[in-house]
Amino acid sequence: MAAKGKQSQMAQWNRSGYFRSSGSRDVNPDLQAERQTASFSVERLTTILDGGADNTRTRRAVEAVIHSDPGFSRENQYFQSQNERYEAAVRKSVHLKEKMHQMGWTENRPEIKYCYRALGGDLAFNVHRVFKNSILALGTDEQIAKWIPPADKYHIIGTYAQTELGHGTFLRGLETTAVFDISTQEFTLNTPKISAMKWWPGDLGRSATHAVVFAQLYIKGKCYGLHAFILQIRSLCDHSPVPGVIVGDIGPKMNFEHIDNGYLMLQNINIPRENMLSRFSQVLPDGTYVKQGSDKINYLTMIVTRVQMLWTEVIPMLLRACTIAIRYSVVRRQSKLNPSDPEAKILDYQTQQQKLLPLLATAYAFHFMNAFVNEFYNKGYTEIKQGNFDSLPELHALTSGLKAIITDYCTAGAEVCLRACGGHGYSALSGLPFLYTKLVASCIYEGENTVLFLQTARFLVKCLAAAHSGQPIPASVAYLSSVGSGKCKAWTKTDFLKPDIYAEAYRHRATRLLGNAATKLQALVQSGAEQYEAWNKCTIQLVQAAKAHCHYIIVKNFIDTVEKLKNEAEIQKIVKHLCDLFALHGIFSNTGDFLHAGYISGDQMDMVTASYLDLLAVIRNDAVPLADAFDFTDESLNSALGCYDGHIYQRLYEWAQKSPTNQQVSRAYARYLKPLFQSAPSKL
Amino acid sequence: MAAKGKQSQMAQWNRSGYFRSSGSRDVNPDLQAERQTASFSVERLTTILDGGADNTRTRRAVEAVIHSDPGFSRENQYFQSQNERYEAAVRKSVHLKEKMHQMGWTENRPEIKYCYRALGGDLAFNVHRVFKNSILALGTDEQIAKWIPPADKYHIIGTYAQTELGHGTFLRGLETTAVFDISTQEFTLNTPKISAMKWWPGDLGRSATHAVVFAQLYIKGKCYGLHAFILQIRSLCDHSPVPGVIVGDIGPKMNFEHIDNGYLMLQNINIPRENMLSRFSQVLPDGTYVKQGSDKINYLTMIVTRVQMLWTEVIPMLLRACTIAIRYSVVRRQSKLNPSDPEAKILDYQTQQQKLLPLLATAYAFHFMNAFVNEFYNKGYTEIKQGNFDSLPELHALTSGLKAIITDYCTAGAEVCLRACGGHGYSALSGLPFLYTKLVASCIYEGENTVLFLQTARFLVKCLAAAHSGQPIPASVAYLSSVGSGKCKAWTKTDFLKPDIYAEAYRHRATRLLGNAATKLQALVQSGAEQYEAWNKCTIQLVQAAKAHCHYIIVKNFIDTVEKLKNEAEIQKIVKHLCDLFALHGIFSNTGDFLHAGYISGDQMDMVTASYLDLLAVIRNDAVPLADAFDFTDESLNSALGCYDGHIYQRLYEWAQKSPTNQQVSRAYARYLKPLFQSAPSKL
Repeated sequence: MAAKGKQSQMAQWNRSGYFRSSGSRDVNPDLQAERQTASFSVERLTTILDGGADNTRTRRAVEAVIHSDPGFSRENQYFQSQNERYEAAVRKSVHLKEKMHQMGWTENRPEIKYCYRALGGDLAFNVHRVFKNSILALGTDEQIAKWIPPADKYHIIGTYAQTELGHGTFLRGLETTAVFDISTQEFTLNTPKISAMKWWPGDLGRSATHAVVFAQLYIKGKCYGLHAFILQIRSLCDHSPVPGVIVGDIGPKMNFEHIDNGYLMLQNINIPRENMLSRFSQVLPDGTYVKQGSDKINYLTMIVTRVQMLWTEVIPMLLRACTIAIRYSVVRRQSKLNPSDPEAKILDYQTQQQKLLPLLATAYAFHFMNAFVNEFYNKGYTEIKQGNFDSLPELHALTSGLKAIITDYCTAGAEVCLRACGGHGYSALSGLPFLYTKLVASCIYEGENTVLFLQTARFLVKCLAAAHSGQPIPASVAYLSSVGSGKCKAWTKTDFLKPDIYAEAYRHRATRLLGNAATKLQALVQSGAEQYEAWNKCTIQLVQAAKAHCHYIIVKNFIDTVEKLKNEAEIQKIVKHLCDLFALHGIFSNTGDFLHAGYISGDQMDMVTASYLDLLAVIRNDAVPLADAFDFTDESLNSALGCYDGHIYQRLYEWAQKSPTNQQVSRAYARYLKPLFQSAPSKL
Repeated sequence: MAAKGKQSQMAQWNRSGYFRSSGSRDVNPDLQAERQTASFSVERLTTILDGGADNTRTRRAVEAVIHSDPGFSRENQYFQSQNERYEAAVRKSVHLKEKMHQMGWTENRPEIKYCYRALGGDLAFNVHRVFKNSILALGTDEQIAKWIPPADKYHIIGTYAQTELGHGTFLRGLETTAVFDISTQEFTLNTPKISAMKWWPGDLGRSATHAVVFAQLYIKGKCYGLHAFILQIRSLCDHSPVPGVIVGDIGPKMNFEHIDNGYLMLQNINIPRENMLSRFSQVLPDGTYVKQGSDKINYLTMIVTRVQMLWTEVIPMLLRACTIAIRYSVVRRQSKLNPSDPEAKILDYQTQQQKLLPLLATAYAFHFMNAFVNEFYNKGYTEIKQGNFDSLPELHALTSGLKAIITDYCTAGAEVCLRACGGHGYSALSGLPFLYTKLVASCIYEGENTVLFLQTARFLVKCLAAAHSGQPIPASVAYLSSVGSGKCKAWTKTDFLKPDIYAEAYRHRATRLLGNAATKLQALVQSGAEQYEAWNKCTIQLVQAAKAHCHYIIVKNFIDTVEKLKNEAEIQKIVKHLCDLFALHGIFSNTGDFLHAGYISGDQMDMVTASYLDLLAVIRNDAVPLADAFDFTDESLNSALGCYDGHIYQRLYEWAQKSPTNQQVSRAYARYLKPLFQSAPSKL
């Protein structure tokens, strides 16, 4: 009765024009006004961000296909339980496979990337891809021929079982064992204790039929270290666990509920000799262990995974968060700026600009950085494939540090966007909680960020030592060997808009922090500390140095990107402003690093602040067009606050109607409340 | 079949001693070892934190009652849907009411506070309490006599409907209307447009029968501003909405799923004249509007809500997060520090200490600050009740700023704890995602933090002007008028362990930042800017100044607390270390603020760093006892990682078994996967 009453009243209110449906094509006038004053062509900037008009066309074509197919709808995503999200992800992944086949999109074509973007990421079988990649990298040709075709067709689903309950980062510590038995020509795999249980692998909990399992190889009682083995874990007939296998789901997480992260215990699982992945090491029938070729190429798997995650799972999430929060901030009006005016758009408050506009600049900085990293990776990959491993340490250090700094910043950024939208940002329907909880995971998976910063730091310390002893060092760290000026040369606040000035400041900071950490390290060792002990005592400072290095690399790449836009005057101008804002915000937020040794003086820092605040006002005017240029579809954003038309209140209301909490009367009423209410005084 | 196979295998593995049940009473030896070397009596520190041995006894007695009652179990909390969490919260709240009656605990006794702590916060009817408080504050004696008794007994459930879809912070902008009709002696309430819909009030979505609604009062066409009205929104017989009322739930949020935050639209709802809360203003039958007494006391409601939320919803959450992460960090071993040793406890890594130990110090700082604020509030409250409103501005400014800085730090701290536990921290079963998502809301509700910092800043600017013109200013800001030394007087790193030295540094920083912001503000106004425009252009710097002021207040209070422990040598020593760590970490993390004007030199900052790093190693040794002293029960922590016995892996495994994802076979298998697997090659 309640529901019926509501409906008829709603109909009445709608007739009276009380609601403007969010399906209407008109755009909120406040949002429209922002678009009319853009200082540049949004379409042109979009094509630059896409890497060319062809890509933009392809992307939009893919989006049109995906969004017109109800099988890919994300309408109920925010209302789903862990079970429902998993089921939807499997359904969509299988459907996508069919769609791709139907459209003639293959895995190597760019369409797949755009599908992922359009779908916002809630797909299954990501680790199945890692399963395949590991076979392609570590398997012999025979192994590849046997396993890849059925995996490609989803006739089997694989997982990559590396991490254990007790071990993540430190791979050598993994405890699963694989013992070779010459008499049977089999490996026997075991989980010797609870901390050795595989824990976290995606697609393992409820989907996978097979797994690449990492285990310590034992032959005749001798341990040969970690190796990868393929084994079946569930029946292909009825999906029941293979005898000796205990497998299940690890339960709820902060997000990633669409993924069935699982656990796996093995009790005397026997597999044939040919199930050890044997491109680089082999066990012969008589138990002889043979190592062949270099397995350095393994690092590439780790590197490419980090590179890919940045542009699929991380950077786009910050772009989305910025789009949502910036559009909201020009529709939302709150409080008065001028007491005689109507309430002000919240983006007109300096504090709101401080929250969102540096993030917008950061989104651009990371997008451009990503383009560079891809290029750098492809170059390194070609060399390595040709057997030249020279670029591997630099590639590894660069991608480690960038993965860490970019995931850190994107996570913090998503929280800022959420909070900048106030209570409505905290509603799941804003899409922002989803972005934050997804991003914070990226700080942990594929290498925990502190560990990664320290890997970069280790490389930097080595390079610094090499530079000091006159050896050549890679291009990205060459600046470490140059002795820069001791004082910043800026005299006015506009000097701080010169890329040379701020780039030099970032270089100086990174060089100083690294130099100090390295000096401390050396002093500790010289005073008798063990190397490991000295290293541990310097790690806080080494992380600072690695961050400063990565920050410099990103600023430098932004500057280079601006220079390359010299034939696009209008675009170059606004992108230069973003570059300035990114660089000056970084100084403004880390003043101590620049003031410490007096490179920038207190007076100069005041100029930085003044220039930074001026830039906020400049970027404010183009904030909406700059967010629009990311060109996310409403379906892909899936946010009640971030839609292109700006009808935030209508959408919040309409979406809330679909919540299960409005679809059923809670048992709480009949069970607990009704008996109480019956005792209320009759006259109230 | 799968489930059965799993069970029998588990039984077999258990027999072989493979699992040690997490129910056993033995403690993980790594955790046990940490406790044996405590430098102080944990029990003694616990009683100090509780405010005396009597309180500790009462608290533990309450915890025993609550935890022995299965009606309060939180066992399945992390697996529940929004519907289920709401139902559980209502059930527990009604049950708690009965329990309190049975135990003779009244709402004013301390037991209720300990119930809340034991239950970890997932209770309903929090806004029902605000409903009651608003009637008590704004209602006449007759209104109180009529509404409070049934509300006390839950015979009616009320909500406090203030916030609207389009308005949160800016109350004057609320759009709901209440028009007085002399002919009927009634008010007619309306929601004139969509942005005026009440949105977010707790207990509104599915529970409330009544509401205190804030609306613009109109009499004979004239607006008299915001007033509060009591109205019934749902039937007491069948809970259906009263005709003209549209009410529902706003849907999923990042957390707070146990609360039915709701929306409310009113269409020509008529209520009698006596339903306007009339202690401070009244509408007479002839339409005459009468204002009586001062309604300044209204501020007290806002202030007490902020004070209460800090000790119920905010600070304890940081204490919990620290307890979980620190216990985990001495059980978790990962990687090697010394290559010839076993894997190291992760708390032995300097970077892990850097993440968790300053947070532990912060938890203590906030706990002690809270004790001070309560005292300060009670004193102010007594004065105000006696008609002396002098302390109101200071009380308001102090509680605003502290609410903002404490919720900011606690939220950031919960994220740090989550990430410091790696992947296992990201599991919902760690309890850390729950703490973070709860805390981040506290930055938004009861005043958005940026807005609150600016309220504190406004007070500080006024005080500074008063001080400059020789007028008296309140005690907490008296330091602003004293001209401090221009240089820090520390000569060695141990000088930075002197409270006078660091307190003076914090004072200097706050004074400088406020002075600069005020000077800029004045200059802008003098150069012709409108006051509001000048203010907006200084807000970023004003927020910095307000933060620096609050930071100083907390450091100062920590120093005072240490001094008061002079009869507890052992405790005083460790608490002094925490105070030093809190203060030096604050300088280390904000170096620029102290270096800018040269108050601390670069060389001195190196001493700060050295002292800070030394302190990490000192606190490391007592980290577990310091966390133990918070004395949370396992049931209250509800974390697979944080239990007292340290059996983290067993608990993760056992809890995961209860997940709904392990209780049912997903339809995804039969629908989408089975058909694919049937095509797999028969020989694999």
